Amino acid sequence: MVRVGIVGGTGYTGVELLRLLAGHPGVELSVITSRGEAGKPVADLFPNLRGHVNLAFSAPDSQALAACDLVFFATPNGTAMKMVPGLLDAGVRIVDLAADFRIKDPDLWEQWYGMEHACPEVIDEAVYGLPEMNREAVKSARLVANPGCYPTAVTLGLLPLIEQGVIASEGLIADCKSGVSGAGRGASVAMLMGEVGESFKAYGVPGHRHLPEIRQNLSIAAGRQAGLTFVPHLLPIIRGIHATLYGQLQKEVDLQELFETRYKDEPFVDVLPSGAHPETRSVKSVNDCRIAVHRPQNDNVIVVLSVIDNLVKGAAGQAIQNMNLMFGFQEKDGLNAVALLP
Amino acid sequence: MVRVGIVGGTGYTGVELLRLLAGHPGVELSVITSRGEAGKPVADLFPNLRGHVNLAFSAPDSQALAACDLVFFATPNGTAMKMVPGLLDAGVRIVDLAADFRIKDPDLWEQWYGMEHACPEVIDEAVYGLPEMNREAVKSARLVANPGCYPTAVTLGLLPLIEQGVIASEGLIADCKSGVSGAGRGASVAMLMGEVGESFKAYGVPGHRHLPEIRQNLSIAAGRQAGLTFVPHLLPIIRGIHATLYGQLQKEVDLQELFETRYKDEPFVDVLPSGAHPETRSVKSVNDCRIAVHRPQNDNVIVVLSVIDNLVKGAAGQAIQNMNLMFGFQEKDGLNAVALLP
Amino acid sequence: MVRVGIVGGTGYTGVELLRLLAGHPGVELSVITSRGEAGKPVADLFPNLRGHVNLAFSAPDSQALAACDLVFFATPNGTAMKMVPGLLDAGVRIVDLAADFRIKDPDLWEQWYGMEHACPEVIDEAVYGLPEMNREAVKSARLVANPGCYPTAVTLGLLPLIEQGVIASEGLIADCKSGVSGAGRGASVAMLMGEVGESFKAYGVPGHRHLPEIRQNLSIAAGRQAGLTFVPHLLPIIRGIHATLYGQLQKEVDLQELFETRYKDEPFVDVLPSGAHPETRSVKSVNDCRIAVHRPQNDNVIVVLSVIDNLVKGAAGQAIQNMNLMFGFQEKDGLNAVALLP
Amino acid sequence: MVRVGIVGGTGYTGVELLRLLAGHPGVELSVITSRGEAGKPVADLFPNLRGHVNLAFSAPDSQALAACDLVFFATPNGTAMKMVPGLLDAGVRIVDLAADFRIKDPDLWEQWYGMEHACPEVIDEAVYGLPEMNREAVKSARLVANPGCYPTAVTLGLLPLIEQGVIASEGLIADCKSGVSGAGRGASVAMLMGEVGESFKAYGVPGHRHLPEIRQNLSIAAGRQAGLTFVPHLLPIIRGIHATLYGQLQKEVDLQELFETRYKDEPFVDVLPSGAHPETRSVKSVNDCRIAVHRPQNDNVIVVLSVIDNLVKGAAGQAIQNMNLMFGFQEKDGLNAVALLP
Repeated sequence: MVRVGIVGGTGYTGVELLRLLAGHPGVELSVITSRGEAGKPVADLFPNLRGHVNLAFSAPDSQALAACDLVFFATPNGTAMKMVPGLLDAGVRIVDLAADFRIKDPDLWEQWYGMEHACPEVIDEAVYGLPEMNREAVKSARLVANPGCYPTAVTLGLLPLIEQGVIASEGLIADCKSGVSGAGRGASVAMLMGEVGESFKAYGVPGHRHLPEIRQNLSIAAGRQAGLTFVPHLLPIIRGIHATLYGQLQKEVDLQELFETRYKDEPFVDVLPSGAHPETRSVKSVNDCRIAVHRPQNDNVIVVLSVIDNLVKGAAGQAIQNMNLMFGFQEKDGLNAVALLP
Repeated sequence: MVRVGIVGGTGYTGVELLRLLAGHPGVELSVITSRGEAGKPVADLFPNLRGHVNLAFSAPDSQALAACDLVFFATPNGTAMKMVPGLLDAGVRIVDLAADFRIKDPDLWEQWYGMEHACPEVIDEAVYGLPEMNREAVKSARLVANPGCYPTAVTLGLLPLIEQGVIASEGLIADCKSGVSGAGRGASVAMLMGEVGESFKAYGVPGHRHLPEIRQNLSIAAGRQAGLTFVPHLLPIIRGIHATLYGQLQKEVDLQELFETRYKDEPFVDVLPSGAHPETRSVKSVNDCRIAVHRPQNDNVIVVLSVIDNLVKGAAGQAIQNMNLMFGFQEKDGLNAVALLP
Repeated sequence: MVRVGIVGGTGYTGVELLRLLAGHPGVELSVITSRGEAGKPVADLFPNLRGHVNLAFSAPDSQALAACDLVFFATPNGTAMKMVPGLLDAGVRIVDLAADFRIKDPDLWEQWYGMEHACPEVIDEAVYGLPEMNREAVKSARLVANPGCYPTAVTLGLLPLIEQGVIASEGLIADCKSGVSGAGRGASVAMLMGEVGESFKAYGVPGHRHLPEIRQNLSIAAGRQAGLTFVPHLLPIIRGIHATLYGQLQKEVDLQELFETRYKDEPFVDVLPSGAHPETRSVKSVNDCRIAVHRPQNDNVIVVLSVIDNLVKGAAGQAIQNMNLMFGFQEKDGLNAVALLP
Repeated sequence: MVRVGIVGGTGYTGVELLRLLAGHPGVELSVITSRGEAGKPVADLFPNLRGHVNLAFSAPDSQALAACDLVFFATPNGTAMKMVPGLLDAGVRIVDLAADFRIKDPDLWEQWYGMEHACPEVIDEAVYGLPEMNREAVKSARLVANPGCYPTAVTLGLLPLIEQGVIASEGLIADCKSGVSGAGRGASVAMLMGEVGESFKAYGVPGHRHLPEIRQNLSIAAGRQAGLTFVPHLLPIIRGIHATLYGQLQKEVDLQELFETRYKDEPFVDVLPSGAHPETRSVKSVNDCRIAVHRPQNDNVIVVLSVIDNLVKGAAGQAIQNMNLMFGFQEKDGLNAVALLP
């Protein structure tokens, strides 16, 4: 059994890791830390875990974490980078669900995240944990930077088109919509149900931290600098991201075949039949990304629709998929449930 | 492998059976019928099943059903009773998720369901499939009447109190609230999101079909005729039932201990600590019933809070629990997931 | 024009007062205070007010308030009581939307609200502002204690039955459900959409502050001590309270006629036809209380269904109704809109 | 008083017309027709109208309608065109809330709406009722084609940019999101709360009927054929449209000033301060369109955010605004309420 630790287990990605790990055949949950809730049984905070997880939160403790085979960081940005070097030295492998190791350029990271990076020398080693791009590298990685939720949905939606130069790598538009769990479980007025229920809005239009991450992914895929406008919106649902993606056609191909071929061996990417409109609920609670590609009115603008559960393929599920690759499990271990519908 | 058939698979209990059976280690789904959707792959109607269920709907066919070990009826009331005698004769065991065999008194059934019963002689044989009341009888049953959603939540909430005479069996009140999936997947104005979203109301106050069913359960438990006022309400959520139950105390006992003792061996009933308030989301997608018992202001009115997922413990999950008992599976087989929270 | 001030305008009752007062023909909004938002235009915080309210928040200032004819307190419990004596001395009339003056017995108040009352000598003068009970007293009141949201819905639902002794004043049950705006606009984890969306639960079952207020109302109506079990629940909608009320019949009357007669001259109480089920959306945004009375199965338990908008008849609307009575306006001035449906 | 008739009053635009007309100072509601509900009081179907509208539905009757000064058609597409010529001959003025007279090219109309036009000769006379484009023409119109909901939000958002050639009229993208009331009040599986709650999806990507209407508006504004990709999505809220609009900058201007100048005299268009993100709830229940314009990352893609209430500015409110212009009322008569927030 792989001994697993979780740092920062009181947020939504934390409880989601616990939900999914509880059904994983090959892991043993050793430690889950929370400074604020130390001593409290996990199931007292999250009653869905009653009868499934008997652990209590403990104060962060380097030794207990150092005894793990793998540590997940489900912490705010800027926390993992302070502990990662020490854990790597102790031989622990790491999946960081926050953004500390996602951006390869430390200056760019510092500009968008507004703090100094604590271990810029480690960034290079980190593998960006999108298995559909980096499966082999993930397998042997000591440190995986788990992708952001929006970047996962957008990158998977555009990858086949960008890699093959079917659409221009400039002038891309990603109009994205996320459920409220993406904003986390911290107290705030802005995320009260009284504020966000029965309403809809864009946010972060001038600039959102996932923009440089998406641009990095697409630039790698294109082999040249990609240009993108990214507009996130807040959906009055709990789980789900829908990315509506627009690009300028520059090469005639069979779009449906392009997508089906690119993803035919991917266990978690499902290309829908031609003409389909994926619903976020079709991936609620599971690690799948469902994609449909359209060419409306036979015009030159290609439209891709891509949906994920932001807490699963956009966070905890992808982290476990990465763990499965790192430790030689079956890639779907613990991730084989059917989405909850209705 | 137990060969399973489903009659009427296009509603919410049908897709929920499929979601849960897809993860069951001991069954093989042989046939799923739908007159209206015959020929269509199940996963075309319910995209969450893509990659998990490859079957297509077929027209109802006695022979295909007769070749099953077990048939679930996920049909409207009045359908199963026409096919059950023939299937029993063919040696098939049956779990009816509708109401055809729940009420022991055929006259009472006909009065509430507004039609003549097609096989009143079979009713007696049917076992009411609430394992917490009838586990042993279920094991050997040929025909199980799967309980209604409200009756499950209400009965489990009141059972310990009624069985022990702790509260009066007269003057009981069950103020119940159900998510919209309880109304099924039929086209209707009344259940449009534009009609039921952001609103709340009672319905069926003069009389609801689950009233005689609940009364029957409580009367059996009390050993005498029970008296109950039952008021159902429609919640603007998809899944979940919350029963708020009121009874008049007539015997001083340790209420918490009473409930914990009664349910200590029940795999799907979770008695919360004293003072708790169960949330419907704590059982979303799972077969658990979570219960808390209160005595507000130390007064003589006992309040029980009982929550289930109406599509799982209130329908498909309980049906599979019954199947597990009937075929000697572990009672939690296929039903061991963690609730989806948030 | 009546000069009006609002203390504490950043919460939901504050913005609702502003929404309704903007359409009132006889008032001039003079001052609105907020310590935290002083200097900020009201419409910057609440964009719905753009073009309707040009005022900015100001720091609390006794002199500006003393120059008003009427001051509304839309503050947390315990704030108004500190400022009311001074304002009364300055000749200002007051409507307190919080609980400081609702409970006649100061000891009981202190027990439930957990603080010492700052001016117990003023409590006696305060008129409980439920016009359906105290219309004449409100007209000449200097200080009105605006009722709580649950007490409004419950009291109006039970009043005709209790006043006439039609049901017993003991053993009453009020099973109430409220939208999330009732919890206010303060930052909290508990009221995040991720926590309360798509879920339902009871809360405060051991004891809720509205219990003594409801009991006081019903005891006055009964002419003797009333006994009540009150269980509030949290609805995943923004606005609306639904009270489901149960009482034991002790006198045969025509229930429908009883209610219609009691409320025939009430501008804001609408008795629905026999057999109806009021929806909370039928009163969304308006000051009406809609009520239906049932006697299920011709049994002896009477069921009353009562709905209000918790921010209107349950708070700001009723406050303006009281103001209308105090200043000789038409009772419906500013309160004559049609509910928003759908 | 202007005598007003409504044809087809059982849908959401019908009840919304009634809600708004009930507060209009200058109209008298004479007749409201519904074949299916003839004889039933309007307030029986829509309880929010109790105490405000005493009319009953009547069967469609040419004579009663011919006695009106104005008739609103709140009917499915293809109904108004059969009755309009006769009513015009009778001297009645008409506002059609459906699509029968919106598209100037009858062939294009027939292609998108799949039926033959009953009176193509009348199309030319119809004035497209977007007051911000055609105010003067509306004033004297006999027949007004009330714009679609999406076209209203999109056109108002792009108008200043297109009219001045600030963005290219080709390659425009309109990523639009609508609440469920836009789909009407007809019984359907697709719009059940169990189907659309807690989910999000695009629909009609290959082609939606509002595409030619938007294209027509933008082409008129541009003075040349405009090119547009239009992707509508279904939001799990009841009311509200959010249009996120993308265009390629081709002329440097002060964008904020451009919008403020264009709309400074418009009573129902509110240009938000620079950097703002309008929420749909800020226009819930009112006739306003709130707009913000962005230039993210100082790049060449301009992003406009435009919100309306689809039932008000997107339907009934705009129809009344048009009526106000046609009959010389103040343009805000009956339309001056404050949006419902929260």
